[in-house]
Amino acid sequence: MPASTRTDATAPPPITGEGRQRVVIEGVTPCVDGGRFAVKRVLGESVQVEADIFCDGHDALRCLLRHRHSADRQWQETPLRALGNDRWRGSFTIDTLGTYEYTLTAWVDPFLTWQHDLLRRQDPQDIALAQRIGAGHLAAAAARADGNDRQRLHELADRLLAAAPQDAAAVASDTELLTLMAHHGERRFATTHAPLLTVWAEPVRARFSAWYELFPRSCLQEGQSHGTLAGAEQRLPDIAAMGFDVLYLPPIHPIGRAFRKGPNNALVAGPDDPGCPWAIGAAEGGHTTVHPQLGTLDDFRRLLARAREYGIELAMDLAFQCAPDHPYVGEHPDWFRWRPDGTVQYAENPPKKYQDIYPFDFETDDWQALWQELLGVVNFWLDQGVRIFRVDNPHTKPFALWEWLIGDVKRRHPDAIFLSEAFTRPRLMHRLAKLGFTQSYTYFAWRNTKQELTDYFTELAQHASREYFRPNLWPNTPDILHEFLQFGGRAAFMLRGALAATLGASYGVYGPAFELCEHEPREPGSEEYRDSEKYQVRRWDLARADSLRDYLTRLNRIRRDNPALQADWSLRFHPVDNDLLLCFSKSPPDDGEGDVIVVVANLDPHHTQTGWIDLPLVALGIDPQRPYQAHDLLSGARYLWQGARNFVQLDPAAAPVHILRLRRRLRSERDFDYFQ
Amino acid sequence: MPASTRTDATAPPPITGEGRQRVVIEGVTPCVDGGRFAVKRVLGESVQVEADIFCDGHDALRCLLRHRHSADRQWQETPLRALGNDRWRGSFTIDTLGTYEYTLTAWVDPFLTWQHDLLRRQDPQDIALAQRIGAGHLAAAAARADGNDRQRLHELADRLLAAAPQDAAAVASDTELLTLMAHHGERRFATTHAPLLTVWAEPVRARFSAWYELFPRSCLQEGQSHGTLAGAEQRLPDIAAMGFDVLYLPPIHPIGRAFRKGPNNALVAGPDDPGCPWAIGAAEGGHTTVHPQLGTLDDFRRLLARAREYGIELAMDLAFQCAPDHPYVGEHPDWFRWRPDGTVQYAENPPKKYQDIYPFDFETDDWQALWQELLGVVNFWLDQGVRIFRVDNPHTKPFALWEWLIGDVKRRHPDAIFLSEAFTRPRLMHRLAKLGFTQSYTYFAWRNTKQELTDYFTELAQHASREYFRPNLWPNTPDILHEFLQFGGRAAFMLRGALAATLGASYGVYGPAFELCEHEPREPGSEEYRDSEKYQVRRWDLARADSLRDYLTRLNRIRRDNPALQADWSLRFHPVDNDLLLCFSKSPPDDGEGDVIVVVANLDPHHTQTGWIDLPLVALGIDPQRPYQAHDLLSGARYLWQGARNFVQLDPAAAPVHILRLRRRLRSERDFDYFQ
Repeated sequence: MPASTRTDATAPPPITGEGRQRVVIEGVTPCVDGGRFAVKRVLGESVQVEADIFCDGHDALRCLLRHRHSADRQWQETPLRALGNDRWRGSFTIDTLGTYEYTLTAWVDPFLTWQHDLLRRQDPQDIALAQRIGAGHLAAAAARADGNDRQRLHELADRLLAAAPQDAAAVASDTELLTLMAHHGERRFATTHAPLLTVWAEPVRARFSAWYELFPRSCLQEGQSHGTLAGAEQRLPDIAAMGFDVLYLPPIHPIGRAFRKGPNNALVAGPDDPGCPWAIGAAEGGHTTVHPQLGTLDDFRRLLARAREYGIELAMDLAFQCAPDHPYVGEHPDWFRWRPDGTVQYAENPPKKYQDIYPFDFETDDWQALWQELLGVVNFWLDQGVRIFRVDNPHTKPFALWEWLIGDVKRRHPDAIFLSEAFTRPRLMHRLAKLGFTQSYTYFAWRNTKQELTDYFTELAQHASREYFRPNLWPNTPDILHEFLQFGGRAAFMLRGALAATLGASYGVYGPAFELCEHEPREPGSEEYRDSEKYQVRRWDLARADSLRDYLTRLNRIRRDNPALQADWSLRFHPVDNDLLLCFSKSPPDDGEGDVIVVVANLDPHHTQTGWIDLPLVALGIDPQRPYQAHDLLSGARYLWQGARNFVQLDPAAAPVHILRLRRRLRSERDFDYFQ
Repeated sequence: MPASTRTDATAPPPITGEGRQRVVIEGVTPCVDGGRFAVKRVLGESVQVEADIFCDGHDALRCLLRHRHSADRQWQETPLRALGNDRWRGSFTIDTLGTYEYTLTAWVDPFLTWQHDLLRRQDPQDIALAQRIGAGHLAAAAARADGNDRQRLHELADRLLAAAPQDAAAVASDTELLTLMAHHGERRFATTHAPLLTVWAEPVRARFSAWYELFPRSCLQEGQSHGTLAGAEQRLPDIAAMGFDVLYLPPIHPIGRAFRKGPNNALVAGPDDPGCPWAIGAAEGGHTTVHPQLGTLDDFRRLLARAREYGIELAMDLAFQCAPDHPYVGEHPDWFRWRPDGTVQYAENPPKKYQDIYPFDFETDDWQALWQELLGVVNFWLDQGVRIFRVDNPHTKPFALWEWLIGDVKRRHPDAIFLSEAFTRPRLMHRLAKLGFTQSYTYFAWRNTKQELTDYFTELAQHASREYFRPNLWPNTPDILHEFLQFGGRAAFMLRGALAATLGASYGVYGPAFELCEHEPREPGSEEYRDSEKYQVRRWDLARADSLRDYLTRLNRIRRDNPALQADWSLRFHPVDNDLLLCFSKSPPDDGEGDVIVVVANLDPHHTQTGWIDLPLVALGIDPQRPYQAHDLLSGARYLWQGARNFVQLDPAAAPVHILRLRRRLRSERDFDYFQ
């Protein structure tokens, strides 16, 4: 007979738990996977918490949001507001880096139930009885209080008892009384949501950043055939002037010689070919060594310090893999998987093959030593002052490694930022973001039509995954030259740059190639660059007249001036009666200071497109009864618009995009001066 | 300094857990509140389980669904099928009452990875090396196997090694080999979803039932002024003939005398007024006593047994509350909340006031004894053979009580059914369903327009809450006479009856009042009946010519003949170009045997309405290229339809509803015989 079948009812079944804990708390948001993972915020943002909270019957509840920074012992408590239908809401603000915990607690409050009931009563006899009951609640609260509160509660109980029935409601609604009763509630049977929920509190740059990617190998100074970190240093004023605030360098370590690749991914390299920076490690050293051709560790430290003077943070590449001549291969052969023929299968990220790279075997029995070593690499660069890491192919390393590694780093350096380069399936991208990656590369490079852009960015901005997944938009990377850029000419670069910079609070460009509209593929149908910097030194003519340098400068200035573009959640797409025109808006986060930004983009880089856009004016904070100014921050043009529907025309040869500032509330007639 | 800040990186941080457990399982469905609550199924249904399952990198996975009945120790394992984008699916069938557990387990399978890789290889040298690696995987599996499997795996390894490169793929795809390797995988680092998830496996009646509510007080026999259980017994043939299979009796216990109510809820009762059955308890006894005027416990047992002979289960009313003269009040004064004036505040379910009823004080220090006593009441009736309970106002008793009580009952009597009468806010209704209530009353009585019906029943049929919330639809109850029935005449009753019987696999009527189209409210604007049976005996003339008896008989026969109407999840609404016409379809559950049912209802009880309906033929299993027969099972009429759009006309005076049977696949021309 199965253990779970009881055949008689004579033995009373045990009752576990406290049966008088009557309140239920469920449907808590935000909450990632039942609290398994943290939500993410940056300094100055708030966490708006909601839950369904209710009890049996018709009693009144007290519902509180509790939060504390992990460095604090004391919980902060904030009353929740009832939204109707048993939904409650409260919020708290993030003001310290690190982690916060939050939860909800609620209990049945007999005093509040009594007070609501009393206010409805008419019959003096009923009220007189209610006064005696209410005085009991006050006396019970007094017993829980001490000092002055206790004394005041006793006095108020006496006052309630002594009041004439027609005055009882006023006594019971006294502000001091309500405050005291709110403080000294009977929490014996309170329900507290479990588990505790967590927030990563991160620097503002985690949400709002403009990245510039640069190969130091091509930062050539007079007479050099291989660039250096010192050469990269000379580019800092220029990059800062363009408005970028993160400078990302591909790996700067010694490059393996075994199976080194030649130009255009050739399987055999010539004697002077520099190889691929991601084939890390050679006799000179591995992941904590600076490539001698690029300079020294001191050069690196100086570059980091100088960048910071320009308001630029350096992003290190973390590529946990080895060239066949990396010192690890000899020192820790058990960290690699050897085949019967004494070789190691090279790394792959299908369909790409990396013949010059060995992957680690994370299933090695010595995996714990391997993890500690990799954390040691990160710690080495943290010790040099690095705070931003761009992680190469994190989805080909164990998820648990990242959770442990990032968790440890952020406990010590809560300002650290990790960008996940996981161009892979959605579930893996999301898992990495949940585990702690601060930002993630996205599918943006492959989203080009109106429908694709609308669907994807609506998901990123509106879906619950926004609590942990922060997109970073790249129109190009050294690995991705999309067909649209190959054939769209300069207008395509302008369009995609503007979309990245406005759809994404964080975006980045593979810099020199983007500025100079580098668009030749290795071969037709390929997304690889011809003569890619991944395999050779490039001499860029950055002074070229058709450079997008000034255009990028303008985009970044617009982003800095407009809080609406510094966060993603407010993104909304709006109808246009032309499928080649895209229209969207962003408003300042948390309904803060600043204006609405409306972007209208011509997705056709070859022809002028016209259409009528349709804006939800009231939702955007615009008075629909009055004309309003649409100020194109890219061209400087100003349009006087009226009503929801307005005409737009975009010639890609001139400007494929409007970035329009709409004042949310017209403050005076002065805004229209120039029309007069 | 906070404990969470470590300032040096010299001490390596601990690594907890197994870092080689690489598979992630998340997004499991069905799963109620993270597994806190069970999903519900009835015998013969399946549980279709899905999850996102993936690992880092590009290795192949083995993914299994595991399930077992709580009486079994052994897990059953079923392979999951990949749906794409890392989503996997499997299912198992429910064949035993009680509870099932299920979970998912998955691991990285190096053999499968190797096999997939081998099939892509061309180079004989690559293949030869792969053969040696593959033989290693087979040898490792052999070491985990024993007996014949071990020997065969060794033989197959030898065969693989000996094969010519061009034959290796065939050897590696051998069925026996694949089967053996599937059985002897290396599960050391498998991931298993936690917590275990649970299914309540319930009788079919939990999903498909037709309830008839009857006050025995009005089951009058010749010359009586108060009905009896024996009189109710005499109604059984009639109720069975109509096709109902649950007979629900309001409380049959002694009725209190203190504050007894008179006709039409009068606060003072006359000496012969019988009072309200929900004011339970008097000197004669309480919740385990049969009201002497209704008969004896033996009469009750006989009624139960006789009903069962007719295929009818009796549903007892569980109303956990007391008349002021209930024995509990004297024996357990601490189970009630006494006010300073020595009285107890009567029960309320706002806006209703029950002056003749004391609520229990579930916050009493003696709550455990009270819970045990209430369970004892249920056990008493279980011992008499009762298996269905209709629970009165469960939302005014603690949630934890129900979870404990229903859980205990269902462990002993997995065929028990509890219907929740929680006409309250959505969250409370849902919580009670999650806690274990088998079925729930709904808002159906107040959903009358096309939009209301479409929204509400789409939610009930499609939302994840269907995993635990089983609706039971009542067009009327002794407490609810909706305005629509007050003014819509007989057509309104026909319409609402048909909607209840077809929108809901479970439905019920407050019987005599429904059959006879009882529609007079106590006063204008009230939903109470005039001369309600709740407060007095009624003499019903069930033989009246305008009775809906035959109509209900037809509805129930159609329900029994058509599996499509015996479950709710397939419900879909379809467009009609007239807002007073409603069209929906249901298909047989789990895509089993039976035809599609299409219901077209005229929501206007006063006027003929016409319109064009638009059916998704292919989705319904109808060949869109051929004419098809729509057979009205209510009127017997047959229509030959063609294509998706067809014309309908419904005169409420004749028949406000079509219940059309559409054959899913026309088997022969014979179906069209009558047209010739």
